[in-house]
Amino acid sequence: MAMQKIIGEPDYGSPAFVAWKKHATQNWHNYTHHDFVKELGSGELPKSSFIHYLIQDYIYLTHYSRCWALAVVKAETLSEMRAASGIVEALINDEMNLHVEICAREGISRDQLESAAEAPENMAYTRYVLEAGYSGDLLDLLAALAPCVFGYGEIGHRLLQTSQNDTPYREWIETYGGDDYQSLCKDTAKLIESAIFTRLGSDPTGLPRWKSLCRKFDQATKLEISFWQMGLRGYP
Amino acid sequence: MAMQKIIGEPDYGSPAFVAWKKHATQNWHNYTHHDFVKELGSGELPKSSFIHYLIQDYIYLTHYSRCWALAVVKAETLSEMRAASGIVEALINDEMNLHVEICAREGISRDQLESAAEAPENMAYTRYVLEAGYSGDLLDLLAALAPCVFGYGEIGHRLLQTSQNDTPYREWIETYGGDDYQSLCKDTAKLIESAIFTRLGSDPTGLPRWKSLCRKFDQATKLEISFWQMGLRGYP
Amino acid sequence: MAMQKIIGEPDYGSPAFVAWKKHATQNWHNYTHHDFVKELGSGELPKSSFIHYLIQDYIYLTHYSRCWALAVVKAETLSEMRAASGIVEALINDEMNLHVEICAREGISRDQLESAAEAPENMAYTRYVLEAGYSGDLLDLLAALAPCVFGYGEIGHRLLQTSQNDTPYREWIETYGGDDYQSLCKDTAKLIESAIFTRLGSDPTGLPRWKSLCRKFDQATKLEISFWQMGLRGYP
Amino acid sequence: MAMQKIIGEPDYGSPAFVAWKKHATQNWHNYTHHDFVKELGSGELPKSSFIHYLIQDYIYLTHYSRCWALAVVKAETLSEMRAASGIVEALINDEMNLHVEICAREGISRDQLESAAEAPENMAYTRYVLEAGYSGDLLDLLAALAPCVFGYGEIGHRLLQTSQNDTPYREWIETYGGDDYQSLCKDTAKLIESAIFTRLGSDPTGLPRWKSLCRKFDQATKLEISFWQMGLRGYP
Repeated sequence: MAMQKIIGEPDYGSPAFVAWKKHATQNWHNYTHHDFVKELGSGELPKSSFIHYLIQDYIYLTHYSRCWALAVVKAETLSEMRAASGIVEALINDEMNLHVEICAREGISRDQLESAAEAPENMAYTRYVLEAGYSGDLLDLLAALAPCVFGYGEIGHRLLQTSQNDTPYREWIETYGGDDYQSLCKDTAKLIESAIFTRLGSDPTGLPRWKSLCRKFDQATKLEISFWQMGLRGYP
Repeated sequence: MAMQKIIGEPDYGSPAFVAWKKHATQNWHNYTHHDFVKELGSGELPKSSFIHYLIQDYIYLTHYSRCWALAVVKAETLSEMRAASGIVEALINDEMNLHVEICAREGISRDQLESAAEAPENMAYTRYVLEAGYSGDLLDLLAALAPCVFGYGEIGHRLLQTSQNDTPYREWIETYGGDDYQSLCKDTAKLIESAIFTRLGSDPTGLPRWKSLCRKFDQATKLEISFWQMGLRGYP
Repeated sequence: MAMQKIIGEPDYGSPAFVAWKKHATQNWHNYTHHDFVKELGSGELPKSSFIHYLIQDYIYLTHYSRCWALAVVKAETLSEMRAASGIVEALINDEMNLHVEICAREGISRDQLESAAEAPENMAYTRYVLEAGYSGDLLDLLAALAPCVFGYGEIGHRLLQTSQNDTPYREWIETYGGDDYQSLCKDTAKLIESAIFTRLGSDPTGLPRWKSLCRKFDQATKLEISFWQMGLRGYP
Repeated sequence: MAMQKIIGEPDYGSPAFVAWKKHATQNWHNYTHHDFVKELGSGELPKSSFIHYLIQDYIYLTHYSRCWALAVVKAETLSEMRAASGIVEALINDEMNLHVEICAREGISRDQLESAAEAPENMAYTRYVLEAGYSGDLLDLLAALAPCVFGYGEIGHRLLQTSQNDTPYREWIETYGGDDYQSLCKDTAKLIESAIFTRLGSDPTGLPRWKSLCRKFDQATKLEISFWQMGLRGYP
């Protein structure tokens, strides 16, 4: 159907992403179609939940930036280093500042933002990814980082087409559904594809190593579900 | 009162432990006096909760052993290396085998044990400690490891004196309240005291560094509370 | 004497740097007054030694960038993360490209540069710093990184005033003696001072921890001497 | 020839070792047939060189133990953890004590041993292996550890058959050529084979990943050559 085709689901040119997603089908669906996501699109999400999410996401971004910095450390080529380092810069400078701005508009100061307590679901997620990166190699780290990058891309891409125009969360939707973020997803896909190819060759899916990458992607996807759940419940 | 005196609370000869515990007073109480603990003592704990806990604790022990192995890597003297390495051995060989035996008696095979899914609370805890260790130095790691070591010691020590003699969990209580485990606590205390002294000197509590150690101890204590909670709820 | 005063030795506003340098006095002198350095200033350095050095320095910069990325991972505040991440960007984008340009002028292609074999002295140095960072905390890493940052600043600062105007290495001297690099030294000094203060407080020099930082600075200084020595001998 | 057959070269049942050795043919020969080795066998090695080597080897063993502890941290199964942890124990308790005893007989006290300065070649080697392990996964670490394990095995095995009976280094030869150490080699080979199989499957040699393992083995082999060279030159 035309509609299906318009919406589609971006694959960002990454067979690895498609395969990992398939391996995590049910969790991926629960993550990308979580009530939090639906309510972002319909506009029904309580403002307090959104703010709670934004604050936690700010804390998340500091650790997420550390994860990408770890990818620089674990890179084996200059081109891998540059790709990962570019993401660190974009996160630390652009994306975190965007959060500061949006929060400011909602009456939350930078101080409040920086002194907020880290929710358990937040901590569980970021430490999982960091530890996967420390204990494994670059591929382990990238597989654990992928659900965040691509999931937000896929959600943004879908909501941009299907959400209510008057949802108060239009700016969030336009950020992740917009060209800049969609381009970032494609660039990250290139990094992942190239990192896999230069380590595991052209036919990696039959290797035992592949299964452990799938498991890391799946686990990080589960932790994304908990993160939405945390947002939805708002302040404990 | 004599009773108080008999029960007491072991300090294992570690001023650091006493100070960290004090900093985490409320969480420490909630951890060491959790309903799970009380029901271990009274015998009211449902067997299914205990089994669920034991299986998760087995998984926990694998990562906990990895934490202590990381302490060997991060050690700066041979004596620190030997202390940490001795704990790895004791965990991997003795304590994990004890779990296998107890589980076997409850009809849980080694295969079931090794293929059990890791509960989120379990993962959150172990990855927190491992990441604290990877990102920080030996002191950060030890501060995050301390609540498990000493908390079990304190609980075992108290329950050994106060629990019902006919609680079905008497073996657990005797393990952690018994001389071997209490000695392990004292040895670990020595390692911690010495590691602090040889890095931060004789008056560490006024340093900003001390606060971050307190925070790591406190955070790990909170994750112990969640771990009991997970045990109590049994299979999800 | 006026002359002394003009030349001086920059302290970059960092008491820690001054103290570490003092602890490593003899090695610091051998590093910053190495024959390689003198011949850079007099112009007597054989072109083949300089080229050999430049190629190895290019390889060095990839690992040095990884070290600074590790500093981002090990940072505990956003401001530490931003400072370290800014250095990674400057290294990966500006400084490495400068090497590519200079080498191109000398007839060395980017391919030659990227496929050059790493000299043992180069490997020894970078792996020492990376391992110090992985095994320790941010301070250990910064102490091991400091000799490179400040030593090049001090050498550049001195040669800019004392070297022959017609030395063929004037561009190198102007890079490290120039305002941009001298500013980078001051910014790095601020990061180091702040990282020390927020961990060890206002009087860190009496702590045992301080001695181990001194040792790391001293060891990295020795490895800088070997690096010049490698440059001087040229291709093996 | 019968002689060839008797001497042979143990493969420890590890196709990976055989392949890595083949990839590093020239360096492997230079390592296992180094003058230091020949003179151990003929007895011509100056005692001062042997003592210098022993002292440095003691320092080496502390970091080598840390490497194997890192293997425990990076392990993905309990059986990998147990294998690596057993090696840590053997090193820290048995092998290091053996060094203490031999040194004592030569008039070198434990204090002298523990306060000896680390030679640059020693530092370069151990930091290389540790960094390879931190930045990569278990396979990277094992590939960098393998030359030490198997090289000493091969040298011991050969010297046991070919060396002069009256060489003063007979005890060293019997240690590494003897059954205990040869068994350790076989056990390590099993760990390596199993770690490769459970990650890269049954046909790993065609993967790009394999080449990077070969490079790590080769690099560590070169660092072994430098280590003998350091022994030979004695105190600097």
